[in-house]
Amino acid sequence: MKLENDIYLRASRGEAIERYPVWLMRQAGRILPEYRAVRDSVSGFKELAETPALAAEVTVQPIDLLDVDAAIIFSDILVVPDAMGLTYQMIEKKGPWFEHTIRTDSDLSKLDIKIDVEDRLAYVLEAIAITKKALNGRVPLIGFAGAPWTILCYMVEGSGSKTFSQTRKLLYTNPILAHELLQAITDVTIEYLKAQKKFGADALQLFDSWAGILGHEQYQEFGMKYIKQIVAAFQGPFTVFSKGAYSSLENLMNLSCTTIGLDWNMDMDNARVLCGENKTLQGNLDPCVLYGSHQRIESETLNMLKAFKSHRHIVNLGHGVYPDIHPENVKTFIKTVKNNEI
Amino acid sequence: MKLENDIYLRASRGEAIERYPVWLMRQAGRILPEYRAVRDSVSGFKELAETPALAAEVTVQPIDLLDVDAAIIFSDILVVPDAMGLTYQMIEKKGPWFEHTIRTDSDLSKLDIKIDVEDRLAYVLEAIAITKKALNGRVPLIGFAGAPWTILCYMVEGSGSKTFSQTRKLLYTNPILAHELLQAITDVTIEYLKAQKKFGADALQLFDSWAGILGHEQYQEFGMKYIKQIVAAFQGPFTVFSKGAYSSLENLMNLSCTTIGLDWNMDMDNARVLCGENKTLQGNLDPCVLYGSHQRIESETLNMLKAFKSHRHIVNLGHGVYPDIHPENVKTFIKTVKNNEI
Repeated sequence: MKLENDIYLRASRGEAIERYPVWLMRQAGRILPEYRAVRDSVSGFKELAETPALAAEVTVQPIDLLDVDAAIIFSDILVVPDAMGLTYQMIEKKGPWFEHTIRTDSDLSKLDIKIDVEDRLAYVLEAIAITKKALNGRVPLIGFAGAPWTILCYMVEGSGSKTFSQTRKLLYTNPILAHELLQAITDVTIEYLKAQKKFGADALQLFDSWAGILGHEQYQEFGMKYIKQIVAAFQGPFTVFSKGAYSSLENLMNLSCTTIGLDWNMDMDNARVLCGENKTLQGNLDPCVLYGSHQRIESETLNMLKAFKSHRHIVNLGHGVYPDIHPENVKTFIKTVKNNEI
Repeated sequence: MKLENDIYLRASRGEAIERYPVWLMRQAGRILPEYRAVRDSVSGFKELAETPALAAEVTVQPIDLLDVDAAIIFSDILVVPDAMGLTYQMIEKKGPWFEHTIRTDSDLSKLDIKIDVEDRLAYVLEAIAITKKALNGRVPLIGFAGAPWTILCYMVEGSGSKTFSQTRKLLYTNPILAHELLQAITDVTIEYLKAQKKFGADALQLFDSWAGILGHEQYQEFGMKYIKQIVAAFQGPFTVFSKGAYSSLENLMNLSCTTIGLDWNMDMDNARVLCGENKTLQGNLDPCVLYGSHQRIESETLNMLKAFKSHRHIVNLGHGVYPDIHPENVKTFIKTVKNNEI
């Protein structure tokens, strides 16, 4: 089906665009009262994510309500370890929590490292199929997964952490185990992303939320190595967002994907110098700008757009939108981008 | 009194040294069973920090037990907001929690912005005086405070946070309030550090734990501006440790202090290029190396030492030592540094 609005895909491929495309990470979420209404009708985050019709409903909400240029499937990066047999709970105001962790060879042996993703993650794939129908060609749908390093962090630590010291400990005490687990996550992730494309995802994004806690060399060995394998398995629009990977920006630019996501502390000019016209850059307004007045949001957004030195940009925040941001402020951000002809 | 071991001070000033000095951030703490015994004899962290004889006892423990080249007073950066009337509790396994926060002009008006630090923080100063006596000239004593930006983060947010979004929100919605509060914190901090010197601190360190959550320009405006004021008020050994301030390293090198602390993700070679021989660099072994075997700890430590391109170094980890590290592993790290003649 030909898309009505394919500006996100054209920008990803470096094709001509008349204005910059715009969407927000976490746009399908707590910022929208309409999302909270759906969320309150079920027992919790997991039930919502595991009920395809509802996941599809909240995925489409920001297209209707915020007028963004792409939808991103409502799900979580932790569905992958969950499918591998390491189930998690999403605890209100605390975040994810795993009853079991992977810290020994024996822990790893209990994990399902070869799984049928179309069976285990059928609920996500069905949500994608329903969403595609509901979108009816209006905008592209982005599928996603966590990068192996970030998934490893949760599987070893068992929850969020400021330092992920248990995970980083493993890199020194049992690097072989770490690599085995990273490879298993990578293999499942490739299958999972392929299935997302098969069921209708028009573009893909990899989130490496905890890239920033590793030094340069360790990120090459335990992070980039597996990201490379994943992006090599795909063609077409694919974004890698390695939050905090300041010392690896140059390496990111050499990946075979179309797009690199930048967090709000990454220097856009420097990123452009590093990639030339070979990559589309996505980002990277400070999410806190959206706490400001409408005038301030407009001026900060325009400042960012004016500083772009290429057309290869997709506008986004430098992080997921914070849940207490008012939807009207998000709309000001989006309108400012859409009204700005290049 | 002439110090028996002044190698930390000599390295700070860029004077000749026969080997690199070494100490650890959080060396007086949970890694030591002897610390935990003292800690268990009181109601909690705050009682320990507020009882000068006990604070002095745990400050001296790592000198006896680990043989480090400097002591650092056992205390917390949050004693400053506490002294300004914003009391906090240290909640086991959760971290600090403030009943009240500063988010409006009215909140600020209730704060004590002009205080007699020698009265309000008498317990820290007395601990410093007792420690100096107990150390009896063996090694220098480091006093410290939090940098204003990090203190602001806790005063606005009321607790730890991954994003400190409420604090960063304030920078957009009420920057005047943020600056007023930062200036008040700065003024108290200067008086507090002066008092620490008066009561016996031989060197000072400023911890900017949340430097890394601000982009370059905001860190200049809300972080560096106040650090500059503080370091300008002192002469002699003074370390600024701005964790995660990757994009401001060059600005840090232009501060008037003697020493810049580097976290484990900062590139030592690049830092040396930026400062030449004008600064002593402190750090920056990955704290997770200490989870490794003794052989691995030794080889990683030696690799770091061999890569130093100047004598102006103080060896430390790139972050506080993690509480579950075995003291014998810490000793291997310290011995490796001490046995390595330059």
